[in-house]
Amino acid sequence: MKRISIYDTTLRDGTQGEGISLSLEDKLRIAAKIDTLGIDYIEGGWPGSNPKDMEFFNRIKEYPLKYAKVTAFGSTRRANIPAEEDKNLRAILESGVTAAAIFGKSWDFHVTTALRTTLEENLRMIEDSVRFLKENGLEVFFDAEHFFDGYKNNPQYALEAVKAAESAGVDVVVLCETNGGTLPHEVEEITGTVGSELKAPLGIHTHNDSELGVANALMAVRAGAVQVQGTINGYGERCGNCNLCSMIPNLQLKGGYQCIPEENMTKLTEVSLYVSELANQVHHNNMPFVGKSAFAHKGGIHASAILRDAKTYEHIDPEEVGNRQRVLVSELAGASNLEYKAKELGVDLSAINGHTRKIIERIKDLEHEGFQFDSADGSLELLMRKVTKEYIQSFTLEGFRLIMEKHGDNEILSEAVMKLKVEDEIVHTAAEGNGPVNALDNCLRKALEDFYPFIKDVHLTDYKVRVLDEKDGTAAKVRVLIESRDATSSWTTVGVSENIIEASWQALLDSIDYALFKYSNHGDGLFG
Amino acid sequence: MKRISIYDTTLRDGTQGEGISLSLEDKLRIAAKIDTLGIDYIEGGWPGSNPKDMEFFNRIKEYPLKYAKVTAFGSTRRANIPAEEDKNLRAILESGVTAAAIFGKSWDFHVTTALRTTLEENLRMIEDSVRFLKENGLEVFFDAEHFFDGYKNNPQYALEAVKAAESAGVDVVVLCETNGGTLPHEVEEITGTVGSELKAPLGIHTHNDSELGVANALMAVRAGAVQVQGTINGYGERCGNCNLCSMIPNLQLKGGYQCIPEENMTKLTEVSLYVSELANQVHHNNMPFVGKSAFAHKGGIHASAILRDAKTYEHIDPEEVGNRQRVLVSELAGASNLEYKAKELGVDLSAINGHTRKIIERIKDLEHEGFQFDSADGSLELLMRKVTKEYIQSFTLEGFRLIMEKHGDNEILSEAVMKLKVEDEIVHTAAEGNGPVNALDNCLRKALEDFYPFIKDVHLTDYKVRVLDEKDGTAAKVRVLIESRDATSSWTTVGVSENIIEASWQALLDSIDYALFKYSNHGDGLFG
Repeated sequence: MKRISIYDTTLRDGTQGEGISLSLEDKLRIAAKIDTLGIDYIEGGWPGSNPKDMEFFNRIKEYPLKYAKVTAFGSTRRANIPAEEDKNLRAILESGVTAAAIFGKSWDFHVTTALRTTLEENLRMIEDSVRFLKENGLEVFFDAEHFFDGYKNNPQYALEAVKAAESAGVDVVVLCETNGGTLPHEVEEITGTVGSELKAPLGIHTHNDSELGVANALMAVRAGAVQVQGTINGYGERCGNCNLCSMIPNLQLKGGYQCIPEENMTKLTEVSLYVSELANQVHHNNMPFVGKSAFAHKGGIHASAILRDAKTYEHIDPEEVGNRQRVLVSELAGASNLEYKAKELGVDLSAINGHTRKIIERIKDLEHEGFQFDSADGSLELLMRKVTKEYIQSFTLEGFRLIMEKHGDNEILSEAVMKLKVEDEIVHTAAEGNGPVNALDNCLRKALEDFYPFIKDVHLTDYKVRVLDEKDGTAAKVRVLIESRDATSSWTTVGVSENIIEASWQALLDSIDYALFKYSNHGDGLFG
Repeated sequence: MKRISIYDTTLRDGTQGEGISLSLEDKLRIAAKIDTLGIDYIEGGWPGSNPKDMEFFNRIKEYPLKYAKVTAFGSTRRANIPAEEDKNLRAILESGVTAAAIFGKSWDFHVTTALRTTLEENLRMIEDSVRFLKENGLEVFFDAEHFFDGYKNNPQYALEAVKAAESAGVDVVVLCETNGGTLPHEVEEITGTVGSELKAPLGIHTHNDSELGVANALMAVRAGAVQVQGTINGYGERCGNCNLCSMIPNLQLKGGYQCIPEENMTKLTEVSLYVSELANQVHHNNMPFVGKSAFAHKGGIHASAILRDAKTYEHIDPEEVGNRQRVLVSELAGASNLEYKAKELGVDLSAINGHTRKIIERIKDLEHEGFQFDSADGSLELLMRKVTKEYIQSFTLEGFRLIMEKHGDNEILSEAVMKLKVEDEIVHTAAEGNGPVNALDNCLRKALEDFYPFIKDVHLTDYKVRVLDEKDGTAAKVRVLIESRDATSSWTTVGVSENIIEASWQALLDSIDYALFKYSNHGDGLFG
């Protein structure tokens, strides 16, 4: 099987998408997650343009990536200065990477209009820049920006540009379909022609402006490209980049190419969800391969045929990419999924036996209301243990009052007053916080600490809010996810309501309930 | 120019998408709207399967469509009965349409597994059904379901199936890529082969399960297909159908084919928005051609090049499809981004002259704190007008108190009490809401309504929350984006704070401030 190397640029090109903005911590966590797929290269950012990106390259060294080489992005040197004096190229070296992608112009129109230099100087810029990085021991990819538009406009110059990179010893010449306007048969023809003119291996970098990002990359691979650049979920400038979540399975499950270790393909859906969660983007249901609806059958004819043989209406087995089949009109799906999940969470299977149907129905009802358990293991486990009566609540809320006061331009003061019944005792206490949820959290802990001192070791580490139905303004439903952790593990809990405080309270309560169950019933070991 | 006929199935295959459900009125309005594009066929539904669909065919006669022929969908007759006794086929005649698409099996595996009849009988079902409708005077399209999977499995039988339709006088044989798993080069090869075997014109119907719905249809057209079936926004079962909003401009603006009257192409974005609105689906920003971000430039290098010549980073002129160019102002912005933005917002350039540096610095400071202006036009404009002293605040907050109370398992009650100074008068009022932000919103409007009655026309339409630094749990910073709209326009505003109520308040305040400025200083016209 022919090997195709995958180059992920979610952290760089992906963040050019409107509304996508990743913190340094987000970027580090995303890099570690993408690495679990077994992708060859993860582009961390553009160290020459952005101090946050430089910081990434320092911090990522703490993360032991299993498969991927971290790469830096940059441009060819500026006009009329030596490469070694170019700040941008020097920043790549300073970032400490062992591989880099530098982009340069291959469309004559861009050289004169955007770059405003001569065609000759541009060729020297490419050659010098590649050579400089090669001489410093890096693996170097040359991203020939606008290659296809350039080739259509002036094939000779476009070829000279990539030959300049080749003559400087570039490792891969990456043909970029930057504006996303080229059709698949053109990409195939042009890539084939370039391949016959160059000895350097070819790569492909496409955009989705004509809804052809994936198709164009596939055609380039057919014509000989051996590296594919893209992003998780297709994030990127304008309409996005080649979507690796579709490209990887297309290449490996259909095209007969080898991109990632076979056993990692089942992680695809999980990685896609994780990245959308951190990028705070809605995970579109209809995304190929990884979307919630990708293998969901609604039509009556489809549903009944599927039950006879899944391949009647499924192009692949959804489990190959870590997704699952859903039959929207029937109540048949789920028992085996639940058992799988119970096993994963360490819940005794014999304990849920006989309760399976009840648990599934409860999950279905709650998912219908907007809950989501894929990422809320803590709440899911509690739900199971409540149905099986393993969990008994040790305190109840009598009530709380939250008061927020703002005077003029001063900061809002947030205060919570709470009355709980804990082991038959009434606790009535109050606490402040730097926001309503923080005040509630502080107050709840304060009320419970005397009874359960281990609560002091539990901390909230993550708080996410998602508006579920954006059509209704501030009266829309919101989903809150809270991640908590103690010394040995972390768990995520969920709440849903039209009132953000109610949703937060539900998630907070589950988080504390989970901790209480963990400590009082089992100690640490069983929950890992 | 070669003519390609477009067959829209939004109302039938489109409604198979998860979460899409259209009322009869929705369907009628969508049909009328799609007709403005100048598409040839609009499939109204499946009269044999659904009483709502039959009602559609009665009611649509009241709508004078300018271009499109309304068609009905159905299946080939059931096994072992004469065509004229098949309820499904008779329902097509009863619907009163002059054209119909009937689907039948061309994959031997489906005939035996799903249909459970003999291969021979299936061929007779196809032939009889087409002949029956032809004899009744209809234009007939045969949708050969799973044609590509069928052809790959048993080419001879797949060909026999479409030849059965041809021999009965079918008008177009539509090759359906039902499961969405075939690659573009395969579609091209197979369509080409079938074309050489048949005299009947070919059509193509694709699905998007491999993110190749549009590409596969394009390849089929290259191989000779003259009809393309698809849906607006690509709605449809699982991952959806061929997206006509991408397919039509690809064919007509790039491929050199003629599909719709040239002058209608500019309506594409409007039709796409309209259909998503009635289908109650979020209109994804990154949709090719018609999405809000499709021509939005965020990267600094892109923005400055665009200002020199749009074609540096745009594959087509956005106005050709009724969309528009946007330059996003983010931390990467330079003076040119800002000037572009000011012009777009209708802010007088001479007014910001001399303030440019101050405005950019203010934006950078705020973005550093977590604000984001690329999608918050309303707040950005206010920021500019505050720096240039064009905007003077007409009210000030003396203070507010928010009280939320929860008793036991009851719903939380949310109440806001507010004191404002409006035009030197003190207003002190209170309101409830179904959450804290809704209560604040209600209270603020109530306080201002007597002074500015137009506030009644302003509504919040979207509320988004993003946790910025997730490491700190509930004490993390959050960013709130609020979208508001009145009868003529919409604007988005932003707030950032560690306190979600404070962040929401800032965005709310900007939204109302923007409305006050809009109405009191300029009336409607200048803001478009």
